[in-house]
Amino acid sequence: MLKKTIKMTLLFDFYGSLLTEKQQQINKSYFYNDLSLAEIADNIGISRQGVYDHLKRSEKSLKEYEAKLGLVKKYRELRKNIKELESLLLKRDLLASDGNDEVSKKLESIKSIL
Amino acid sequence: MLKKTIKMTLLFDFYGSLLTEKQQQINKSYFYNDLSLAEIADNIGISRQGVYDHLKRSEKSLKEYEAKLGLVKKYRELRKNIKELESLLLKRDLLASDGNDEVSKKLESIKSIL
Repeated sequence: MLKKTIKMTLLFDFYGSLLTEKQQQINKSYFYNDLSLAEIADNIGISRQGVYDHLKRSEKSLKEYEAKLGLVKKYRELRKNIKELESLLLKRDLLASDGNDEVSKKLESIKSIL
Repeated sequence: MLKKTIKMTLLFDFYGSLLTEKQQQINKSYFYNDLSLAEIADNIGISRQGVYDHLKRSEKSLKEYEAKLGLVKKYRELRKNIKELESLLLKRDLLASDGNDEVSKKLESIKSIL
């Protein structure tokens, strides 16, 4: 379940803005604010089944976007490679231990974009 | 015009798979194969105005995707920062001149993902 939540959160981070307003609201409540289906249903005044259907439809859309665009996969590959680059530079003592050199700073700004 | 073509090609590279089949086909013919509106119209058997309308609608969709997801902007920032990192490493003689060291190879694989 945790693994699925992480996966859905990542998909939502990337493609959430393509969902409808209501879908976005429900996904945020469920995945970020950890509300239950019943709580969300209560908050927005629809049935528990309605909330569930919105989540299922969102999941389907998010997965379709990833199948077409593959950005989450690309992003994870990039993160992995940037980390490996950082390890290589560290191993060769090419980064200042306080992270206060130009190369470390550049690496940080790259990571902050990702 | 060239600037616009580059911009549209980049948008199409990112979000093209979200367009309809026909829109994709017309965009490819126009931006990649450099066909004229009349040639495309002739090839797929619709009017020149029809081709123009498809292109305009595609452009609108692609721009909306970018407004929501901002991936082209992110991608360009990343490319810029990776290049700057490479320059920093080169300036300090941290990359082998033949590119045949671990750090250079890692940088290459990062660039190939982007």
